Amino acid sequence: MAANSRLAVAAHIVAVLASKRDEFVSSAYVAASVNTNAVVIRRILCALTKAGIVTGEKGKAGGSKLLRCPDEITLADLSKALGEEHLFAIHKNPANPKCRVSCHMKEALGKAFSRAEKAAEAQLREVTVSELLAA
Amino acid sequence: MAANSRLAVAAHIVAVLASKRDEFVSSAYVAASVNTNAVVIRRILCALTKAGIVTGEKGKAGGSKLLRCPDEITLADLSKALGEEHLFAIHKNPANPKCRVSCHMKEALGKAFSRAEKAAEAQLREVTVSELLAA
Repeated sequence: MAANSRLAVAAHIVAVLASKRDEFVSSAYVAASVNTNAVVIRRILCALTKAGIVTGEKGKAGGSKLLRCPDEITLADLSKALGEEHLFAIHKNPANPKCRVSCHMKEALGKAFSRAEKAAEAQLREVTVSELLAA
Repeated sequence: MAANSRLAVAAHIVAVLASKRDEFVSSAYVAASVNTNAVVIRRILCALTKAGIVTGEKGKAGGSKLLRCPDEITLADLSKALGEEHLFAIHKNPANPKCRVSCHMKEALGKAFSRAEKAAEAQLREVTVSELLAA
């Protein structure tokens, strides 16, 4: 299964808004930069709005605008706004109570995956939208 | 999109084989521990066999057996065997050449994602199958 590109699209959206600070930017403009459908952009803008990162204005001169300073928005904030909690999933099949390995595996894997996710998240926390624009 | 559980299933499979060292274990036995279909198990066993982690024996008394010591097999080895290269994907839409942000974004995100993936992989390298069984 391919990895999820929603975080990349969200980062691109926020970078576009950061490049036009204090303006309301239309989803059509953002979509032209990301080179995708405005529906995809609006869906992610909705999650960013709920998380307090973006605000929206309806109408002809409307659009979206950043509510926070781009050097205070990290990739980890965007990931959280999208509700992307887990990079690794434990399989959902219930443990087989007759098998010691089966009974034990989910807890052991859960701890290992949690450490890996925290390490990745710590790196995402190090990268701000300002840095993405300046890199 | 839900995170991928193939790594969890692969770790569970290898832990079952490790618990029955030097025996050929049937995919039906492994499937009963993971509590899933034997087809799912065989597909992942195939990847683990190609990676030299597992060997298979056909026939009635056949099955799968570990080729390497469980304390030398890490979660990172299993992830590599499954070809799970990326935890984060860059969107595939081509950059819009008229937009500076668009032209720049994929490279900047690529570097940030690569650092996060390496941090997660370093954690996966710290966990062996023996440790999963003992945890």
